[in-house]
Amino acid sequence: MTRVYLAGPEVLLPDAVDIGRRKVELCTRHGLIGLYPLDNAIDPTAKDASLRIFRGNEAMMIEADAIIANLTPFRGPGADAGTVYELGFMAGGGKLCLAYCNDPTLYADRVRKFTTVDKQAGRLADAAGLTVEDFGLSDNLMMIHALELHGCALVTPRQAPADIWHDLTAFEVCVRMAAERLGSAPAPASS
Amino acid sequence: MTRVYLAGPEVLLPDAVDIGRRKVELCTRHGLIGLYPLDNAIDPTAKDASLRIFRGNEAMMIEADAIIANLTPFRGPGADAGTVYELGFMAGGGKLCLAYCNDPTLYADRVRKFTTVDKQAGRLADAAGLTVEDFGLSDNLMMIHALELHGCALVTPRQAPADIWHDLTAFEVCVRMAAERLGSAPAPASS
Repeated sequence: MTRVYLAGPEVLLPDAVDIGRRKVELCTRHGLIGLYPLDNAIDPTAKDASLRIFRGNEAMMIEADAIIANLTPFRGPGADAGTVYELGFMAGGGKLCLAYCNDPTLYADRVRKFTTVDKQAGRLADAAGLTVEDFGLSDNLMMIHALELHGCALVTPRQAPADIWHDLTAFEVCVRMAAERLGSAPAPASS
Repeated sequence: MTRVYLAGPEVLLPDAVDIGRRKVELCTRHGLIGLYPLDNAIDPTAKDASLRIFRGNEAMMIEADAIIANLTPFRGPGADAGTVYELGFMAGGGKLCLAYCNDPTLYADRVRKFTTVDKQAGRLADAAGLTVEDFGLSDNLMMIHALELHGCALVTPRQAPADIWHDLTAFEVCVRMAAERLGSAPAPASS
């Protein structure tokens, strides 16, 4: 049965375990096995907690046939670095890549919320003088085009949902696409 | 001869081409071929510019034996998403991974500069209520432990250099480690 690694910074929410349960259930409903990185199962105060979390996540990714990454902006204008690393890792390993972003705005517009953006010498630049990538994309071009070319295009809602960290509508679209692409076992008739 | 992909957001600086030249020269001096993603060689106003940049970068990564990623914080408390994706991609493809960060501070301390951080119900949380990962690491645990386990540990200076985007001291430490790990052709006697 097809296994899907469920990446995203929602593992850092107080109700991370519940969100994971809902994500895994949606996978089951579409005939897939969802693998959710339950960071919370490891005592975060243990001396080697971060290394144990890494090993657990990596083992799950190696076991998985696909990834569904939550690229909703996190502590800045773009996606969470851990999630982005995992998307790259799965792409590099030739696995099917899917992702969603619950913020439908464009990257260049989001950068303005976090830093001064000016037109400098004909280019858009941030306060540190680095060019703001203005390609009309939702996030960094490496993720967006990797998804288009090697998986399924990024899923975004037309309007941001009221609760960007708990709304799973865009996530379920990804689950459906993963099931279509990878095949899925039919859910039992009673469900 | 060994090829190293040189990832980092410095491609967004006005003097990106010069920085790339200096990085490639340092590689040559250590017997390696540096592959620098010259985003600037593609007209950024072309209709399919972002896709062409993606294809160029991906082709370079596939050709490369290793990556040296610049994880210096970019538009937030952590590394640039494009660079992180590329690090993940190379790790997923089983390539040697190296990286440096010109900011020696810890991730949890950097988060405080960008958002309110409070102790909530016994855990450190940001303004959105998401736990701040406080493992005493420089950036997200996925990158830090991937480097330790599958490449070389992240290189950071003791003190931040005066110019974090142009100082290549930590980069050169990575080049030297890559040359030791992968073997290198001796530089010509005249150099």
